[in-house]
Amino acid sequence: MENKIKGIEEILLMGPGPSLTHPRVYSALSRPTLGHLDPYFIQIMDDIKAMLQKVFQTNNNLTIPMSGTGSAGMETVFVNLIEKGDPVLILVNGAFGKRMLDIAQRLGADADSMDFKWGTPVTTDEVEAQLMKKKYKIVAMVHAETSTGVCNPAEEVGKLVKEHGAFYILDTVTSLGGMEVAVDKWHVDAIYSGTQKCLSCPPGLSPVSFSDRAVDSIMNRKTKVPNWYLDVSMIANYWAGKKRAYHHTAPINMLYGLYEALAVVLEEGLENVYNRHQKMHEKLVDGLEELGIKMVVDKQFRLPMLNSIWIPEGVDDAEGRQALRYDHHIEIGGGLGDFAGKVWRIGLMGNTAREEHVDRLLKALAAITKK
Amino acid sequence: MENKIKGIEEILLMGPGPSLTHPRVYSALSRPTLGHLDPYFIQIMDDIKAMLQKVFQTNNNLTIPMSGTGSAGMETVFVNLIEKGDPVLILVNGAFGKRMLDIAQRLGADADSMDFKWGTPVTTDEVEAQLMKKKYKIVAMVHAETSTGVCNPAEEVGKLVKEHGAFYILDTVTSLGGMEVAVDKWHVDAIYSGTQKCLSCPPGLSPVSFSDRAVDSIMNRKTKVPNWYLDVSMIANYWAGKKRAYHHTAPINMLYGLYEALAVVLEEGLENVYNRHQKMHEKLVDGLEELGIKMVVDKQFRLPMLNSIWIPEGVDDAEGRQALRYDHHIEIGGGLGDFAGKVWRIGLMGNTAREEHVDRLLKALAAITKK
Repeated sequence: MENKIKGIEEILLMGPGPSLTHPRVYSALSRPTLGHLDPYFIQIMDDIKAMLQKVFQTNNNLTIPMSGTGSAGMETVFVNLIEKGDPVLILVNGAFGKRMLDIAQRLGADADSMDFKWGTPVTTDEVEAQLMKKKYKIVAMVHAETSTGVCNPAEEVGKLVKEHGAFYILDTVTSLGGMEVAVDKWHVDAIYSGTQKCLSCPPGLSPVSFSDRAVDSIMNRKTKVPNWYLDVSMIANYWAGKKRAYHHTAPINMLYGLYEALAVVLEEGLENVYNRHQKMHEKLVDGLEELGIKMVVDKQFRLPMLNSIWIPEGVDDAEGRQALRYDHHIEIGGGLGDFAGKVWRIGLMGNTAREEHVDRLLKALAAITKK
Repeated sequence: MENKIKGIEEILLMGPGPSLTHPRVYSALSRPTLGHLDPYFIQIMDDIKAMLQKVFQTNNNLTIPMSGTGSAGMETVFVNLIEKGDPVLILVNGAFGKRMLDIAQRLGADADSMDFKWGTPVTTDEVEAQLMKKKYKIVAMVHAETSTGVCNPAEEVGKLVKEHGAFYILDTVTSLGGMEVAVDKWHVDAIYSGTQKCLSCPPGLSPVSFSDRAVDSIMNRKTKVPNWYLDVSMIANYWAGKKRAYHHTAPINMLYGLYEALAVVLEEGLENVYNRHQKMHEKLVDGLEELGIKMVVDKQFRLPMLNSIWIPEGVDDAEGRQALRYDHHIEIGGGLGDFAGKVWRIGLMGNTAREEHVDRLLKALAAITKK
């Protein structure tokens, strides 16, 4: 069997994630492995927590990376906050909202969902009406719907949820590090993200943060968290406790990568990072318009880092993406769920969101659409 | 804030894991990130499955790495096989057997445990007597108890469990790649391991394998697996299905590391790898005896890769390990649970199990015990 690691070629990752890993992150990944209770590694953990607090814009003490990908982060917030029978409201306008519902149902929640049309945002009036009708323990929403490219009104929904006294869960897998995410200001009680989108780090970890109020609720559960691996009441002892009690062996080298990724973002500065994403988004949209390619989402609801386009007329879904991959060494994403076969998704996340990459993609799209 | 990644020093990892990462694995970790649905990446996945089958000595089709550490592997086998009320027998002679019991209880199993003295193995006579008394759906045991250094009779228990028609779950987090693990021959139905022990790869992934019989049982569950992230009925579509349906974003670069780690083990050859671990173990034990340091486990039950010693007389637990860490740049492990403060654990796993490392540790132990 030929070793396939040597043969890996660099592909320009412009799909819905993973994005291009930053060169400094690659170097960090291959630094010497330390023990998970090593005193120097514990200093690294402390810095990661502090940097995550900055990126999440929060003072929450329980702000840590979970040892799994973004979906593990989603499961973490639900499995820790939900007890059987808890009334939960999920706002759904894409594949990841649907996933939230699936997870809540598996946990035995009394889960209601409100469905909004794919490609359009959650509307606060309807949410407010529902919150008047029924008392929920938890309201959950995706900030940046990766399946559609829609930005949901995270701050406005946060205000409503706070008024109604529920816990507010927010998915920022795709938004964190690419646009404003303000945990404390938005009254978010439990938030999660991924490393492989705007943080320019390979997939494998999920940063999460819980408000003190959410932590209190978890510590006072009637039943044990049914999920051992993701039980934050135990993991908190390792990440934030005085004794650093062993829970599971932390993914050391991936955490080196996250450390460096966070350092890169904070060195550039959050505002600068957001602006770069927005500028690259505008450049891309201008170029797409010149090619006659249509955006799926109305201008005011678009995410900068995830751009859904209708598959150009006359181009076959699979063939078009294969041409990009093989002739141009570029990956973009296909459609998910309701959008499968109809939509392509172009990511401008983290290290991918650079002028030369946008130019390269636009040229390649021109070639495959023969404009 | 000073960047702490640059300041990481190489420590000789001789604790209970992580072990020393192999140089080829470091290189693999920093190869260019590919998309999780990229055609070349799918070839890499196929090779990983084939290599895992060899290392596990199995033809099981569902032989894949889970996207979490060894503890996630433990949770995976339990959460997929157990439904509420299922009778489960857990054989406990250390911290990891206890963890199995905790997980089974969280899942609502009718869980019985049999306790054996820490530092001694599970005895088959007693297990047989219990299997005569009660009909179990699942029997679970740890092969290599990392908390004590005891090797449990995995093959013999497998024979008993098969006779009684139950599913056999085996934990091989510490044994895989360091001593024989023969899934098919031992009639194991669900097995898991970790990357950070004898595979010389950083922590972060958990190879698992399920027998066809176990897969059938999972596919015919009455209720959905309560854990979305670890639901192998969905993950199998991504790893082994024809359509490679997206489940969660695989931890790409960690999987490169695992690929290379498995290649390194198979190039050396399983028998050679096992022999090297055994030889290094014997060399270590000889050296410890010369220093008057006593082994915790009787000779015939000792693991090659995890050596528990009674803390040398006159040496303080924390001070002794700190002297090793700071004066000699060596990590060893402290005691867990019943053994905390009494026992030290010396790992000889994977790339750590080399002559020069054993020599270096013995010299350091001589220095700190002033022999």
